[in-house]
Amino acid sequence: MADKIKIIVLDILKPHKPDIIEFGLLIEKSRGVKCVNMSVYAVDEKTESVKLAIEGPDLDYKKIKKTIEDHGAVIHSIDKAVIGESRIINAPDLK
Amino acid sequence: MADKIKIIVLDILKPHKPDIIEFGLLIEKSRGVKCVNMSVYAVDEKTESVKLAIEGPDLDYKKIKKTIEDHGAVIHSIDKAVIGESRIINAPDLK
Amino acid sequence: MADKIKIIVLDILKPHKPDIIEFGLLIEKSRGVKCVNMSVYAVDEKTESVKLAIEGPDLDYKKIKKTIEDHGAVIHSIDKAVIGESRIINAPDLK
Amino acid sequence: MADKIKIIVLDILKPHKPDIIEFGLLIEKSRGVKCVNMSVYAVDEKTESVKLAIEGPDLDYKKIKKTIEDHGAVIHSIDKAVIGESRIINAPDLK
Amino acid sequence: MADKIKIIVLDILKPHKPDIIEFGLLIEKSRGVKCVNMSVYAVDEKTESVKLAIEGPDLDYKKIKKTIEDHGAVIHSIDKAVIGESRIINAPDLK
Amino acid sequence: MADKIKIIVLDILKPHKPDIIEFGLLIEKSRGVKCVNMSVYAVDEKTESVKLAIEGPDLDYKKIKKTIEDHGAVIHSIDKAVIGESRIINAPDLK
Amino acid sequence: MADKIKIIVLDILKPHKPDIIEFGLLIEKSRGVKCVNMSVYAVDEKTESVKLAIEGPDLDYKKIKKTIEDHGAVIHSIDKAVIGESRIINAPDLK
Repeated sequence: MADKIKIIVLDILKPHKPDIIEFGLLIEKSRGVKCVNMSVYAVDEKTESVKLAIEGPDLDYKKIKKTIEDHGAVIHSIDKAVIGESRIINAPDLK
Repeated sequence: MADKIKIIVLDILKPHKPDIIEFGLLIEKSRGVKCVNMSVYAVDEKTESVKLAIEGPDLDYKKIKKTIEDHGAVIHSIDKAVIGESRIINAPDLK
Repeated sequence: MADKIKIIVLDILKPHKPDIIEFGLLIEKSRGVKCVNMSVYAVDEKTESVKLAIEGPDLDYKKIKKTIEDHGAVIHSIDKAVIGESRIINAPDLK
Repeated sequence: MADKIKIIVLDILKPHKPDIIEFGLLIEKSRGVKCVNMSVYAVDEKTESVKLAIEGPDLDYKKIKKTIEDHGAVIHSIDKAVIGESRIINAPDLK
Repeated sequence: MADKIKIIVLDILKPHKPDIIEFGLLIEKSRGVKCVNMSVYAVDEKTESVKLAIEGPDLDYKKIKKTIEDHGAVIHSIDKAVIGESRIINAPDLK
Repeated sequence: MADKIKIIVLDILKPHKPDIIEFGLLIEKSRGVKCVNMSVYAVDEKTESVKLAIEGPDLDYKKIKKTIEDHGAVIHSIDKAVIGESRIINAPDLK
Repeated sequence: MADKIKIIVLDILKPHKPDIIEFGLLIEKSRGVKCVNMSVYAVDEKTESVKLAIEGPDLDYKKIKKTIEDHGAVIHSIDKAVIGESRIINAPDLK
């Protein structure tokens, strides 16, 4: 189970077509992907900015990247990643 | 179970009639829809803007879109989508 | 269980009498109503504005509306509705 | 179980004596009251403003009101009420 | 179980000595006290302002008050109280 | 179990060396300490300000204080303490 | 189990290559690391600032530090640490 990519959050810029539903279906077909969450946060005339969260037991980032780029979108940044056990680490929040 | 549409959140503009209750009942009749949540966030003289969340094991977006448009409403945008397993992905929120 | 109205949230304007407790008791008597939540958010000399949430396995909106209007109140707007399964749909909230 | 008052939240203005502890004990003695929560939110020279939440399987508002007024306090407003099943109704909060 | 004081939150002003740990130990010794939470929210040259929450199945406020005053502190206000069943009452929060 | 110190939150000023990891390990060795949480909230050229939470079934504050001071740090204030049962007391938060 | 490092949160500055996914995989290979969370919070032309949370039953900070520095990144600060039992300590938050 060690050194596996479990969650990736990407910031992408995509054309309106395919819409986020079709886009999500294409990404969900990648090996190892179990769940895709998409959320549009800015809309322009020809493009939309989308936060894309992907979860699975062993994500293949190269293939996910290729799928995104093959459909006319670009990855602005890799925002977040969870590696190893699929867990959000709680940290002390002392005030 | 793979590549199925589980949750869609739409931003729609609709006339006051049918009201959101009747509107929700019409959408809930679409194949695969199990639950409809509607929330009005802006009201105009003749129209209202509504966030519409739809959940089901295998949503048919084309039919949902047709139902919405057949009752005089337009889809402003597809805001959010969950594809594959029906799960909200937690992402690290480190400060 | 399909196409049933499970939760309605209304924004109403009512005279001070009957008070929200008596008002809630009247609504709770409608067929299919199991629970009524009322919250006053603005008070005027002769009226008060109230958020009214109603839950039940099969709400009859027409009768609820009649009860409200029979006691001197008016419905400003239908704010929210849950149709089908009684569930609040979680949507991705990616930042 | 139908048409019963389960939770009432009142906004009251009271003299400093009896203090909120003694005041709460007096209200808790009313028939049907199981739990009393009190929270002071403003203090003046001779009075204090208090949010008073009362829960029980079958509250008797008239007696509660009498107890409050018999001890020198006035009810500013009935802020909230839960009637029927004792449950806080969740409503869609779509953004 | 009826008419028992379960939770009290006090706002107190105390000298720096005894510190909040020693102070809490003294209060915890009062009959009926099971748990003491203390939180300093303002510090002055000679004094500190402290929120003091006390929980137990049957608190004796008079003795708690005496303990506080016997160690050089004064009670600014009784902020909150829970009487009867030890429960925080949820109230409808409709928006 | 009565009159035991269960949680202490301290505000300390420490030199950069030893770092918070080594510092936490030193404190964790004190009798009765089960868990140490440290969070840096301000950094200066030679010092850093740290919130330090310590939990255990029976904390010995004097020894903890000595350990802190033996490693070049000073205690700004004792911010919070839990005495008796190890529980965060919920208080009514009525609005 | 005593005196073990369970959670570390670091603030690091890294070049864009390797990306946070590859970087996380490298750190996850260190002895004792079970889970890595990474979150980018600022992006510059040549570098990015990242919050890096690492969890494990017995973290070896020296090796983690070496791995980070061997890949061209620098540790700005050690922000948070959990030592002993792996638990976030709740502290009274009285208002």
